[in-house]
Amino acid sequence: MGKVGSKPMATLKHCTLWKADRSPSCRAVMMGLDAMNISITEVDVDIDKAEHRAQDIVAMNPFQTLPIFKDRELILTDSHSINTYLAARYHNCNKLLPRDPGGRAVVDQLLLYNCGVLQPRYRAAADPILYENCRFVLPDQIYEIESSYSDLDGILSGRPWLTGSLMTLADISIAATVSTMNILVPVDKKKFPNLIRWMYTMSEESFYSTANDKGLEEFARRIGKFLNVETSSKICYEFVK
Amino acid sequence: MGKVGSKPMATLKHCTLWKADRSPSCRAVMMGLDAMNISITEVDVDIDKAEHRAQDIVAMNPFQTLPIFKDRELILTDSHSINTYLAARYHNCNKLLPRDPGGRAVVDQLLLYNCGVLQPRYRAAADPILYENCRFVLPDQIYEIESSYSDLDGILSGRPWLTGSLMTLADISIAATVSTMNILVPVDKKKFPNLIRWMYTMSEESFYSTANDKGLEEFARRIGKFLNVETSSKICYEFVK
Repeated sequence: MGKVGSKPMATLKHCTLWKADRSPSCRAVMMGLDAMNISITEVDVDIDKAEHRAQDIVAMNPFQTLPIFKDRELILTDSHSINTYLAARYHNCNKLLPRDPGGRAVVDQLLLYNCGVLQPRYRAAADPILYENCRFVLPDQIYEIESSYSDLDGILSGRPWLTGSLMTLADISIAATVSTMNILVPVDKKKFPNLIRWMYTMSEESFYSTANDKGLEEFARRIGKFLNVETSSKICYEFVK
Repeated sequence: MGKVGSKPMATLKHCTLWKADRSPSCRAVMMGLDAMNISITEVDVDIDKAEHRAQDIVAMNPFQTLPIFKDRELILTDSHSINTYLAARYHNCNKLLPRDPGGRAVVDQLLLYNCGVLQPRYRAAADPILYENCRFVLPDQIYEIESSYSDLDGILSGRPWLTGSLMTLADISIAATVSTMNILVPVDKKKFPNLIRWMYTMSEESFYSTANDKGLEEFARRIGKFLNVETSSKICYEFVK
């Protein structure tokens, strides 16, 4: 994991993350760690080899999903709660996760939007391609994803970050999802100018380079194999420049 | 709103909740308020009269969903973040929402499960009946809901509450959703004994009587009008006794 910012990196030897880079949820935690300058043990789990179904993994997470995070006796399996836990417990900064209840609630609300709206729409578009022999993004899913782009474009109108003037964990989690959805349904610069501007700003952050780019490219290559030529040409990971 | 427990009720005149009783998300907040012994201004929004699309409501929440919560300049529209905000800011008790980062993260994770898994499955079952002339719960949705019951039954194995030995806001939010799903797909006592036991214990809480029962009955009556006789006979709101 890369080093971000000028603060010395905190190394938490008692914490471990099991992850797969191509998963947006895993990349949200990896970006969160780098943004907070926290180093923990990371274990790659090869989903293609069904390692997420291994006995020791299932013992920690019966739902067989990634990421899985462990801090001594505490096990967490939701990327949002992993990031907020790390910020609340180990990060001495009030910006990524405000400590005042109002600021925290606004971040929480966006994390819940990512969990309850964006992630299900991403999965509804990607899963038929990855697991059900579908060779294109279904029209209903394109509509749903573009509705989300419209929501986010509205939220970002007149403000640099999703909650206002400061980047928070909400930007990080949502960037992981949207950058992946962008491979399936490219964000239209003209229709969603605020969203594209925000995506580009996010892509310039060093934690994005160190913790999102590699897995994103892996996902693009993988999904490209399943799609036909015409549709795979849409897998063009470009921000406005 | 009823009074719960022996502590004097805190009245927050600067806070308002716009809600519809038949919505599980609204009932989650109403139960949260009663469980925390907090009284705020409550405004009923008649969805049948499209009051949720009124100009003043849309100005607060462009997504036109309920609940909407306002505390001076702060507006929140997600039931989970409303409850955690109220607990963190106004409730002098560490039980419903633990203050230590680990305990809070475990509650957060279950709230995210409610938002990302249970609520979408509830909507996928209810919306075709309420809005698309469907007259039964679709088989795929029954399967998904029963998978959720199985998940919850596993989590509740050997513990009285979802996070362990204390009832938290996670129990309250999930009770609002599951009690409503139970009308569509009744929880089988034999298949899910831990879940039924927990549902019964929740139904005995005074905040459940004051803030969940009425809206739940309203939902049952409403959904009953759309269903045929055979299926409506399943709308049997019974816990094990």
